[in-house]
This record gives sequence, C-alpha cells and structure tokens, in this order.
Amino acid sequence: MCPSPEPIDAAEPAAADRRRLTEEQAADIEATRAEVQTTRRAVVPALEEILYEPLPVLDQGFIRVIDYMGDDAGIVQAARVSYGRGTKQISNDRGLINYLMRHRHTSPFEMCEIKLHIKLPIFIARQWIRHRTANVNEYSARYSVLEEAFYTPAPEHLAAQSQTNRQGRADVLEGPESRDALGRIQAHSTDSYELYLSLLNEDRAGDVQDPDKKGLARELARMTLPLNTYTEWYWKIDLHNLLHFSALRADSHAQYEIRAYAEVLLDVLKRWVPLAYDAFLDYRKDGAELSGKALAVLRRMLKGEQVDQAESGLSPREWRDLQALLDLA
Amino acid sequence: MCPSPEPIDAAEPAAADRRRLTEEQAADIEATRAEVQTTRRAVVPALEEILYEPLPVLDQGFIRVIDYMGDDAGIVQAARVSYGRGTKQISNDRGLINYLMRHRHTSPFEMCEIKLHIKLPIFIARQWIRHRTANVNEYSARYSVLEEAFYTPAPEHLAAQSQTNRQGRADVLEGPESRDALGRIQAHSTDSYELYLSLLNEDRAGDVQDPDKKGLARELARMTLPLNTYTEWYWKIDLHNLLHFSALRADSHAQYEIRAYAEVLLDVLKRWVPLAYDAFLDYRKDGAELSGKALAVLRRMLKGEQVDQAESGLSPREWRDLQALLDLA
Amino acid sequence: MCPSPEPIDAAEPAAADRRRLTEEQAADIEATRAEVQTTRRAVVPALEEILYEPLPVLDQGFIRVIDYMGDDAGIVQAARVSYGRGTKQISNDRGLINYLMRHRHTSPFEMCEIKLHIKLPIFIARQWIRHRTANVNEYSARYSVLEEAFYTPAPEHLAAQSQTNRQGRADVLEGPESRDALGRIQAHSTDSYELYLSLLNEDRAGDVQDPDKKGLARELARMTLPLNTYTEWYWKIDLHNLLHFSALRADSHAQYEIRAYAEVLLDVLKRWVPLAYDAFLDYRKDGAELSGKALAVLRRMLKGEQVDQAESGLSPREWRDLQALLDLA
Amino acid sequence: MCPSPEPIDAAEPAAADRRRLTEEQAADIEATRAEVQTTRRAVVPALEEILYEPLPVLDQGFIRVIDYMGDDAGIVQAARVSYGRGTKQISNDRGLINYLMRHRHTSPFEMCEIKLHIKLPIFIARQWIRHRTANVNEYSARYSVLEEAFYTPAPEHLAAQSQTNRQGRADVLEGPESRDALGRIQAHSTDSYELYLSLLNEDRAGDVQDPDKKGLARELARMTLPLNTYTEWYWKIDLHNLLHFSALRADSHAQYEIRAYAEVLLDVLKRWVPLAYDAFLDYRKDGAELSGKALAVLRRMLKGEQVDQAESGLSPREWRDLQALLDLA
Repeated sequence: MCPSPEPIDAAEPAAADRRRLTEEQAADIEATRAEVQTTRRAVVPALEEILYEPLPVLDQGFIRVIDYMGDDAGIVQAARVSYGRGTKQISNDRGLINYLMRHRHTSPFEMCEIKLHIKLPIFIARQWIRHRTANVNEYSARYSVLEEAFYTPAPEHLAAQSQTNRQGRADVLEGPESRDALGRIQAHSTDSYELYLSLLNEDRAGDVQDPDKKGLARELARMTLPLNTYTEWYWKIDLHNLLHFSALRADSHAQYEIRAYAEVLLDVLKRWVPLAYDAFLDYRKDGAELSGKALAVLRRMLKGEQVDQAESGLSPREWRDLQALLDLA
Repeated sequence: MCPSPEPIDAAEPAAADRRRLTEEQAADIEATRAEVQTTRRAVVPALEEILYEPLPVLDQGFIRVIDYMGDDAGIVQAARVSYGRGTKQISNDRGLINYLMRHRHTSPFEMCEIKLHIKLPIFIARQWIRHRTANVNEYSARYSVLEEAFYTPAPEHLAAQSQTNRQGRADVLEGPESRDALGRIQAHSTDSYELYLSLLNEDRAGDVQDPDKKGLARELARMTLPLNTYTEWYWKIDLHNLLHFSALRADSHAQYEIRAYAEVLLDVLKRWVPLAYDAFLDYRKDGAELSGKALAVLRRMLKGEQVDQAESGLSPREWRDLQALLDLA
Repeated sequence: MCPSPEPIDAAEPAAADRRRLTEEQAADIEATRAEVQTTRRAVVPALEEILYEPLPVLDQGFIRVIDYMGDDAGIVQAARVSYGRGTKQISNDRGLINYLMRHRHTSPFEMCEIKLHIKLPIFIARQWIRHRTANVNEYSARYSVLEEAFYTPAPEHLAAQSQTNRQGRADVLEGPESRDALGRIQAHSTDSYELYLSLLNEDRAGDVQDPDKKGLARELARMTLPLNTYTEWYWKIDLHNLLHFSALRADSHAQYEIRAYAEVLLDVLKRWVPLAYDAFLDYRKDGAELSGKALAVLRRMLKGEQVDQAESGLSPREWRDLQALLDLA
Repeated sequence: MCPSPEPIDAAEPAAADRRRLTEEQAADIEATRAEVQTTRRAVVPALEEILYEPLPVLDQGFIRVIDYMGDDAGIVQAARVSYGRGTKQISNDRGLINYLMRHRHTSPFEMCEIKLHIKLPIFIARQWIRHRTANVNEYSARYSVLEEAFYTPAPEHLAAQSQTNRQGRADVLEGPESRDALGRIQAHSTDSYELYLSLLNEDRAGDVQDPDKKGLARELARMTLPLNTYTEWYWKIDLHNLLHFSALRADSHAQYEIRAYAEVLLDVLKRWVPLAYDAFLDYRKDGAELSGKALAVLRRMLKGEQVDQAESGLSPREWRDLQALLDLA
C-alpha cells in the first residue's frame, strides 16, 4: 500500500467545536468523562485519555472511542490460551505479535474489540458498511428528524475526474469553477433540507409549519435529502478487522473522504495497541504483495540481468507499478 | 408476523417496460434467456421460466433472478448428507422440511443459494444492506455516471407520520397536500440530477457541457443526489437467510417500499422451493412468538379463568397485541 | 423452549480445585485478580467479582470470564446513538430493553461483548464451534503436547439411547452396565493417552522415552486421542449471539454436556446484564413460537369451541406439543 | 506461498473404490449422474464431467462436487452489474479478472458458489471448520451410528516432530519405529470401534449384542472414538472464500493431511473457473507479501548496494526467508 498522496489535517482539540456538537452533547460527554471506576480488566491509559472525546474528521464529522476490550498483552494471552495476563516482557510480546502478523495468524487479533461513535456523510457511510464483519447501530431517520448537517468539501479537495484511474480524482479545480461548485453544493444542501422540513410540516425548532397539513412520514420525507447529509452510528469491530479496514481505507486508492476517517483510526490504533500497530505498519501498510511473475522478474534483476517490460511477463501497468514500488527507472 | 396491511401490486409482465429497461438492456436479457444447455444439476422448471426477467417493483425498480443452486430435494439431501439426490417421495421430503423448519435446524436451508439483480432506491438499499449475511456487488458511482432514475411514491403510499407507532405511517395524505408533495419530490429529483450533470460538466448524452471546465470527479459530484435515486446491485444469499430477510421485510412494521420487494421475493420463493415456502408460511410468517408471561395468561384462559390486563403481568401494549393476535375482546 | 429436565449442579467455589487447575495456573489467576486499575469505561461490579475465576463445569471443565465490554446501559446508549452514558433511570432502561428484545431489534445487544476461557471435551467443542459468529483461539495440539484430561460422565448422566427422540437420551443405565461402561471409558482414556505419549516418545514428565526413537510429530500423534479429551480455548462473542447460543444450548433438546456449560453462561449473563437477562427469560427462554395453524386452533379454543387433533390441521406430534405447552389434556 | 514439498497423489477414477464407497452409495451416485436436464443458467462442461464423482483423498476420504453456481463469465457479469451474460471475448474477461484479483476486489468472486460432499478425518475437520465463512451440514453422531472408517497415514507421511518449526514435521520415521507406530494406530482404531459398538450394545450388523443391556446413547458412546475417525459433511462456500481457504491450506506450512484436500480443491477450481484460477496462481499462490523493511532492502540491492542482515532491519528469520524467496545467497 502506498502512503496517501493528499495531506490529512491533524486532529485538533474538539473543545467548543460548535460545528460538531451541540452544547447539550458537549455537556453529556464531559459528564461521562468525569466518572472513573476501578476494574480488574486490562486498561490502556493512552486510550483512556481520549475516551468519549470527538476526534474531528472532515468539516462536521467525528470519531469518538466509546469503549474497548483488551490491549497488546491480550493478543499474546489469547495466542497462548494462558491463565495469567501473559508475559510482562515487552520484547517477547513484540516478537510474538510480529510473528502472528507476518504469518497472518489472525485469530489472536480478533480477541481485542473497540466501539466507536462516528458521524459521517451518507455517501461515505455507504462505502463503510460494505465491511460486513462489524456491528452497527445507526441513528434512525424513520423514527427521528435528521439534523441540518451536510458535508461540503474544502476547496483543496474539489478535484476533477481522473482520466487514467477511472475510479479516482485528478487535479484540483481552480478559481471560479471551484467557487461555483462549492456554492451550488451548499445551496443545494440548504434547499434540500428546507424541502425536507416542509414535507414534514415542521420548522427548524420542531414546531408545526401549517396547522392544516398533516406532514409526510419521516421515513418518506428523508428521500429528498442528498447523499452528503451527515448520519451517525455506533460501530463495534474487532482489532483484526479494524486493521484490515484501515489498510483498505487508508490506501491511496480510497476516496479522500473515507481516507480522512481511516487516518484518525490509525491514530487510535497507535494509542490502543502500539505493538500491533507497529507490526501492521511494517507487514501491511508499508508492505506490498508481489505476484509470481513480479518475483521472477526480481530474481533475474538481482542476478544482474537486464529485464524489460516486453519479455517480463508483466502487463505495462504492472511493470510501471513494480518500477514505482522499487524506485527503478 | 402479521399480513401486510397495504396491498402490493401483483408482478405483471415486464415486456417493453420502458421505465425500467433501455432497449439494449431488454435485448441483452432476451439473448440470455434464449440460450439453453444441459446439466446434471438439480433444475427447477418453475424458476427457469422467469430466469433473467425483471419482476417489477415500485415505479422503476425490479428484481431479476440471475442464478440459483438447489431445490427442495437439496435441503433433504444435505440434512441426510446423502450420496444420491434424496427421496423421490414428496410426502417424505415435506415431513422432513417441516421438521427442520419447526425446530430451527437452519443449516440444511443454507445449502440452497440464489443470485438476484435488484434495482432499488438508495434509502431502501441502506436498510437492505443491514442484513450482513449476503454477497453484494453494487453499481459504482465512483467509476460510472448514474442514470436519471428516481423513485416517486404512488399517491396512495404518501402517508403522514404515525402518532402511535413512532417508526411508521398513518393516514394517506389527501388532495392538495399530496399533489404538492409529489410535485416537489419530482421537481427536486430533476433539479438534483441537473446539478449532478452540471458539476460533472456533462449533458444527458454524456457530452462535455462547457469546454472551459474540468468537471468534478464522479465520486464527489454524486453527493448532491437525493436518497430516492435508484441504484442497482447483484445480491447473492442462501435460502435460510433469504427466508429470514423476507420474514423481517414482509412484516407489517417494515417500511412499505422494502415490503414491496419482500413480497416479490416471496413469489420467487414459492416458485423455487414450494415445500420450504409452505413450511415458512406456517411456522414463521403466519406464526407468532409468545412470551413466558403471555403463555401463562393463555393457560389460565384455557382453564376458563377470566384474566384482565392489570393482573396479567403483561404491559398494556403486550395485552393489546395478544388480544389482537387471538381475536379476543 | 422448555426448562431442562436434568438437574445441573450449581457452580461452587473453585478454590484449590486440583482436577481443574495446576498450582501454577491457580497462582497466575490469583496474581491477575489482584491487579486493580481505574477506568472511564462502564464497569459491572457483579461481574468483576468473578473475573478470571474458573466456574466449574462437568468433571474437569470450566468457564472463566476474561474480559467484557458494556452493560445494560450500553445497550440503551447504542439504541439511542447517544452522546452520554444513557439515562440513569433503570425503569426506562428496562422498558426499552424489553421493547428491543420483544421486537428482535438485535443490533443494540451486539454492542456488548464478552471474552471467555473455556475448558471442554472435544466432542462438545465440535458442537460449540458450529456457532460461527464468534472469535476462537484454541490451544494448539500441533504445537504443544496435550495434558492428560478426559471427561468421564457422572453415573447419573450415563443414559440409554432414546427410542422416541432419535437424537436424545432415555433412562439412566443401572448397576453393572453403568459401572462397566464407566470403567471401560476411563481405561480407554488412559490407554489412549499412553499410546499418544509412546508415539511422541515422551513420558508424563516430558522426557524422552527411548533415545533410539525419533518420536512422531505432535500433529500426527494426537489422532489417537479420543473425543472425550479436554481442550481449551478463548472464545469471544457479542451479547446478542451469546443469548442465542444460550437459548439453543440450554434447551432440553441439547446434549446434557453442552447444557451444563449453557447453564453457567446463564449465571454469567445474570451478573453481567440483569435487565437483558430478564427480558431474555421472558421473551425467549420461557417463551414459545406458535405456528399459524396452532394459533388458529387457539383462537377456536378461546371462543369455547372443542377442537381435536384430527381436524386441527396439526400433526399428532405438534398436537401433543401444543397440549403440553398449554397444560391442556 | 510456497509450493507444497510433499507429492500429493493425483486423483484417479474412483469406480469400484471399495474403501471409500459401499455398493449402495456407488449405485446412488451412478443414478444421479445419469439424470440430465436443460437449464438457462451458466453451465461449466468441465465441471459437469466430474459432478457427483468421489475424488479420492488420503486412504478413505473424498471430495465430491454436488452443485455449483456461476463461472468465469459470472464474475465479470457481477463486476459490471450487467443485464446480459457479459462479454464473449475471453481476453477481456481475463483482463478484468486479473485486475480484480490483483486489487483484491473480492466481491465479484463471491458471486460464484460451490457445494461439496467431503469425507475427512475428525482432526482435519476440526482445522477445516475454523474457516467460518461457509455453510456446513455434518453427519450426526447423536442420531446415527458412525461407520468403521479410520485414517491411517501412508508410511511416507509418518514424520518426526520438527525441531526448527515447532508446528511442523521433520524426517520421515524409518523401519521398525514406523511399522510399530502404524500397527499401533490401526490396532487402536479397531479397539476403539469395538468399545464404541460394545457401549452401544450393537454388533457390526446393527443387531443387539446382549439382550439384557440397554446400550449407551449414541451421543455418549461416540466419546471413545479417536480423532482419526472419518466424518462426512456437505460444505458450501463462495469462490472468494474457497480461494482463500485453498491458499492457506495448500501452503507448505499446513498439515499434510489438509493439504491433500486443498490440492484436490485446486484441481476442481481449475475445471470450474480457469481464468480466476490462473489469476489466483499468479497473484496469490505463487506470489508473496513483502514487508516495508524487506522492500527497503530490495530497493538498496537493486541500486547495486551490498546489504547484510545485521543492518537490514530484518530479523535473521526474515532475512533467510527473503534470501530463499529471491534465490539470493
């Protein structure tokens, strides 16, 4: 996997971040953070530090760590089916974790679990949910009225369709085209929300607009909302699947908007399970999978042979990718 | 589960259904249907009849059966881990299938599989995908431009928010409120699509609108499309999970729009596995689960005792539901 | 589901239970229990009390709670996608949990997770693993030598094959037949273990038996061990799936040996999530599912009509089951 | 993944293979093979050829293909969410399938499904079942009496414990130690089966042994059977997961006995989906995953630099593996 080409903003303190939280929500979070109890379970102080805090993503989204189970030692403990909490020698734990990651012994990593509260645009939620091995509880738009929250890209992320990678983006739009696009996206979001409220026969305060109307059912009115509407869900996943998700979604081929979430997940992983995180970086995120044909080419090159694409057995695309990966050319 | 209160239109022949298929799509389907080959596998003639045909759902959606594996005899064969194709006596098969369904021996039902091509509005696709035990391949709006297809409810399905069931619909909207809502939903769909095309810098024929613009990437432009935009996917699922999905989604508490799909799935099930379908109707769809407290009430009533809600142990809501289920009061 | 007909021994203190733990294992557990830390996460004191303790099952097996995530309030919190820890009014929580259980809204229950260390005979492990929605890490008999631990039934559980229920047990064996069977099972276990050691060319202390032999690989030698050999695993599962597992395996149709484990799981559930446990008892364990035909019979009976099996639409077996369920006859 | 070091016997015609099939079973298979019908579904003639035939594995095991859904074109059809059966140009299909395999777009491969009947020793079944994304229906030893079928390794597979790879095998046992081990395994299998029958109070013909005894329940008597007892199951899995299973289990680190099954699965894959099979060989089975550190080493070597293990950042084990992979040293 390649490093992401676009810069991702670092997570900054969310305190008083009015775009993301109402005052009531901020107060609920504060109150929950204030409660501390004792436990016999494994505890990860670096993760406790940010527990419940909204880690900002995109213009109005966030990831909050709600709960977690296990730590690096828990991976070792499960791999050994042990009676105690595993060795206290970190060097042993690191060696075993590297071994497990390298040989794809995935089940000990499944023994850690994390629960997150995530606010994200619907078109990203639709990509996200394709990962099936997780538990989800989404805010119900059949039962409740959605709040007025829409994603608008930052100008530096408004890009044209890529001509070479049919799934991707190319150059950033400039000047008037960019301003025009942003303005129209924002106006369309507001118009859509006003149509939604009007169909519900409610105003922004939740009061009836027109006493002579019944208002459309919530499950129907929502159909006019655009795909950049923010939704929220609780999402629970085990460590193995979270690493897999992060590898796929932090990859440079992933859409920028989901990559922004994946980068925050990597920060969370680093706090939670630093040894597993290091192993993941080396063996997955910074590693690469080479085909049988690519390995054959490498063997010849390392013997000093000159190889060109035509007789390499690789397609032109594979040839270019191999050259880029190994700093050839 | 209760029978659905709203009538679902019967599936009618889709031939020349221009709202659902382009001419090219219709021709592709015709050509595929024309090819016939021989096989040693189990074959279900009643399902072969409708193979590949679009079964209409809602105003522009459909379900197409693309492939299937197994039949009623295949359930029996798996339950017995048998070397031949199972008994030829249908009465024996029916008895065993009823037994398996009644005692929730689910694994033999998992041995049949079906693959469907489905066209459905995005807000329904979002409910649908919550069922995780299935395989999905969706049309990519990162890679391709979406066609102009939006769901508009029929006037008889435009209902107000229910006051008693916070997730549901109540009375159908009338006269001007209904006409106004439908008109605004349609206009908003068209406006949204035009904004989408404009951001892409394409016209309806796929040509460039303005040679001085770059056009926004598809993965971004789609964010302005509303949730009633139609999408398409291939969806593959085993019989056990399809029965479970159908029971949940054909239930009267499900949103009408997904219920419309579930009703078509029931028709498909009846053609495919008639014995399993009958068992499913009796033990699941027409059956009900009673709590321990409800059973205690029933035992008393059947002994001739008068029982009222206050001392039944049931909540008022449970009491009403029990009375409705058993035609009491 | 019916209550289990065979009595299950209550879990008693495991302290100094030499059949289940070596001294080293007991010391590891003690040391782990002694460590206490502070956390901002939800804590369940009743479960902390027994954390890491082996809860005895069968003659040498156990269940140990290793870790848990969430509590009753966490179910409510997820159902509401809330920012705080949910209401503090237990009556509200109970009402919502009952509602969710009754209407099979399963996803909030998936938001709690538990991790167990289990020691169980292999023939029970083979039933257990059929439940796929869980994470497992088993002690490796390719890598390690298995210890000498075999299940021998208590005399009161040595039963004959049932003639009416082809999957079940009937009368308990008596006198000489019982003593003979137990003796032969025990002798066969010891003989098998000695053959295993001999093939490994090891003695019970782990030393080489015969310096002129190589000894067979562990992954091969194990093939001579019988299915009553004890194995161990770490098993992690969410609350929804644990309730489902417990309902199936605590049912009177389940084999006694797995029922013994399920009964201990019910004790754990009661400590962990008392509100969800109560709802589970009423709506699942003590409840029953009635078919459409059975409901039709009930409606007639409740109107005072006499109904007999012949014209009830029910099979003789279904008729008997309905009579037993409702104390008729 | 490396090629398997031990030779696997080629599958030969199973006709009249008395160790694997009773006459009745062989006749059932013949009768099923004789029935041919017409279908509109995709058909794979090379797979139809061997449909229902037992492909021999180990001394008494087999794999039988019972049913399948889809073919190479079905992968393409799903990837394009198409209305017809996909292109008829095989070169286009191959290019797309290679692309999907290379970029791990797994969902189109999930759109093909296969159902197998497998006879295998229990200790292998226990490894097999750890792969959770499949459907299984096993022959019930609670309900039926197991037949007398036990795995005995061929002398060339009786190996000592590896000292370098703690999970593996080393040298083959020789002469007397080998003969002794085989004789004892066989005798133990027969003794165990006789104890099983005696506890059931049945003889090999299924008649009562001693009219004064009741006989132990089947679910209990089975506990004396050893782990090399053969069991049977129906197993259904999608193509993506079957490829994953085959890659893991055909790997040189897998136990020989499961590798023997994986090799037969590869033959089945080659008949069923030859394009996907070729892509799988190049990108998975013959490919390798390199860590970030290994890639850094390669980049230096390809620039002509001398690198040694000490300053490579790789562990001694990783260094040796890299050298072996690339024919260095």
